[in-house]
Amino acid sequence: MIDHNDTALTKRARLVVPGGMYGHMNARSFSATLPQYMASGDGCRITDTDGNTYLDFMCGWGPVVLGHRNPAVQQAVSEQIAKGDCLNGAAPVMVELAELLVDTVAHADWAMLAKNGTDATTACVTIARAATGRRKVLIAHGAYHGAVPWCTPVTAGVTREDRAHLDYFEYNDLDSLRAAVDRAGDDLAAVIVCPFRHDVFRDQELADPLFAKGLRELCDRAGAALILDDVRCGFRLDLAGSWEPLGVRPDLSAWSKAIANGYALAAVTGTDTLREAAGSIYATGSFWYSAVSMAAALATIRELRDTDAMQRMFDSGQRLRDGLAAQARAHGFEVVQTGPVQMPLLRFAGDDDFSQTRLWCDEAGARGVYLHPYHNWFLSAAHTTADIDDALDRTDDAFAALARR
Amino acid sequence: MIDHNDTALTKRARLVVPGGMYGHMNARSFSATLPQYMASGDGCRITDTDGNTYLDFMCGWGPVVLGHRNPAVQQAVSEQIAKGDCLNGAAPVMVELAELLVDTVAHADWAMLAKNGTDATTACVTIARAATGRRKVLIAHGAYHGAVPWCTPVTAGVTREDRAHLDYFEYNDLDSLRAAVDRAGDDLAAVIVCPFRHDVFRDQELADPLFAKGLRELCDRAGAALILDDVRCGFRLDLAGSWEPLGVRPDLSAWSKAIANGYALAAVTGTDTLREAAGSIYATGSFWYSAVSMAAALATIRELRDTDAMQRMFDSGQRLRDGLAAQARAHGFEVVQTGPVQMPLLRFAGDDDFSQTRLWCDEAGARGVYLHPYHNWFLSAAHTTADIDDALDRTDDAFAALARR
Repeated sequence: MIDHNDTALTKRARLVVPGGMYGHMNARSFSATLPQYMASGDGCRITDTDGNTYLDFMCGWGPVVLGHRNPAVQQAVSEQIAKGDCLNGAAPVMVELAELLVDTVAHADWAMLAKNGTDATTACVTIARAATGRRKVLIAHGAYHGAVPWCTPVTAGVTREDRAHLDYFEYNDLDSLRAAVDRAGDDLAAVIVCPFRHDVFRDQELADPLFAKGLRELCDRAGAALILDDVRCGFRLDLAGSWEPLGVRPDLSAWSKAIANGYALAAVTGTDTLREAAGSIYATGSFWYSAVSMAAALATIRELRDTDAMQRMFDSGQRLRDGLAAQARAHGFEVVQTGPVQMPLLRFAGDDDFSQTRLWCDEAGARGVYLHPYHNWFLSAAHTTADIDDALDRTDDAFAALARR
Repeated sequence: MIDHNDTALTKRARLVVPGGMYGHMNARSFSATLPQYMASGDGCRITDTDGNTYLDFMCGWGPVVLGHRNPAVQQAVSEQIAKGDCLNGAAPVMVELAELLVDTVAHADWAMLAKNGTDATTACVTIARAATGRRKVLIAHGAYHGAVPWCTPVTAGVTREDRAHLDYFEYNDLDSLRAAVDRAGDDLAAVIVCPFRHDVFRDQELADPLFAKGLRELCDRAGAALILDDVRCGFRLDLAGSWEPLGVRPDLSAWSKAIANGYALAAVTGTDTLREAAGSIYATGSFWYSAVSMAAALATIRELRDTDAMQRMFDSGQRLRDGLAAQARAHGFEVVQTGPVQMPLLRFAGDDDFSQTRLWCDEAGARGVYLHPYHNWFLSAAHTTADIDDALDRTDDAFAALARR
């Protein structure tokens, strides 16, 4: 077990960082065996500052879709760094990337680039309001759309007015959505929704195709924008957009995380109807024109498109899920595995406070498998069959250790 | 003259980017001779996609403080890239950087890291509200603090409630500040202010030391946080903080731009009084723990601290200002030069619509000097005496061309 308050780095950090660490990567909040600080990454493996290596099933909480230090991406990054990054104006890679996004994403007629997922979701909401001249935005209860006052899950420092024009519905519940649409009346600007329900601290839930289609119809009838928050799922499930398999296209999509294999980038894509509104808002940032992350995105998306990376991620995820299910059964545990196999989550049945799941993840962590007890995991294209089997050898031991407790 | 709607790249961009370009780097909005797209940068020179090279006095609108592709920064970046960037948890460079910020910035007892300047200003406001349990935030009329609904200068898509708890005062006017503090009453959370008045479309105005001291006293009396928005000035005027020469220390500072010589990074620093509140808000982002930009920041700040970079920036800025003043006189023009010499701005006297200033900047642009007609410029430590003299040869021609019109 690790005392997260008592390693050399965490002790130093507590002096100069509020709480020692902030945000979703605060290891103390989710693990007793996984370290706070990491020294390096290579493919699907990461190594901590004490030299312990882990099979990585968080992938930086999503961004690392091709594996750490993917050669194609690193090559593109090196080439762009040798030219320049933060220039006065964008580099040609910006135009190439916007073209590639428009070619790749089914609904996209245009693209804008930013740095954070929150930049993209905030811009989507602002564009929808600018386009419609309306104010109300509907959000699913419990959904995560970013970490600023209008959407953060923690309300310290948030005022009531920051959320004055938000209203809520239940994911996959058309009746509750319809009621919220009715409440908004002729002031409905947008509905923002994730491709599937991936809230923390609960089983994941795929989108009901009828819900998605009904949402599309309600938005069309109301003249409101359908915003798909594809920040977490994008470029891992379907390159054309995570609702493309459902046949439902958004008006606006927010992208980030996996778009550049870990380099800081976000994007908004939209339809022609919203092009003028998108050009009317002031969306900008000091590093939004920086070329290196765009070069990384070009390489990442092309690699995902031109290789069997997407299929391999699916196959690896399926192999992991099947293996974990068999192990749980063999050790006498009932587990619930939810979400797409590329973004899996495992919870022990009846483990409402996640205590047993935490213990199992701790046992896995101690055996070199990096898993999270209540936030979905991520596969990457660097996870091979052999890597999954390696991980499964270790999780089998973790189940056995839990059974002995 | 360039037709910004008609170059190969801008024509392609107009198809896939709203308006062809967005935000502050939209070249069409400020220049008829400077191109939208840049191919490379080296020291204080940048080269466009047609091979034309410019002496760069915008430095990416601030970030590039040591010059493009500074060797010390590039070396640190290469070394960190070879280890990893976006890992599960931070790398040791995060602790080193937080320690360096606390050592370097006079008021800082702790630091948090983010990506955009807007992330930092938004976090400062949220921390102040969390700490005080109050809502009102005072802002100087015309000041720029970011590009999201609560602060963007363009109000498309912004609702009245996004700014419900903001009130305004005149920069350098203690009476107007005092009146705003009185209006906020016991609901005053913070006053946010820039180190000097650097609003676009007007002469720059240094902070009156009496205003800064009065502001500090008013905040102390009200129990409100003084937030210094050092995003634009930070790491260019005084490493300890841009109000350190005035003897006025903020409670919270927002940093970005020059902190990592162009790599995407922002920071909040604060005093111990606000440490707990800072730990209570949910401030996070997918790339906020990424190691490469932190390694770049360590190298940048050390280079600024351990060499004569700050003095050289000042000297180069002074040489440029003196040279431009002499040239204007010689050509029969009256110009107004304002702001610190490291962040200069030149306007022709009486040129209220900036039309003459634009023409002169266009002439300079056509001669390979990258200047902006209504946004402050930036010097870097890569600008040598010879570079300034080279630039002055060209601006002399620009004045002469303007005199011939």
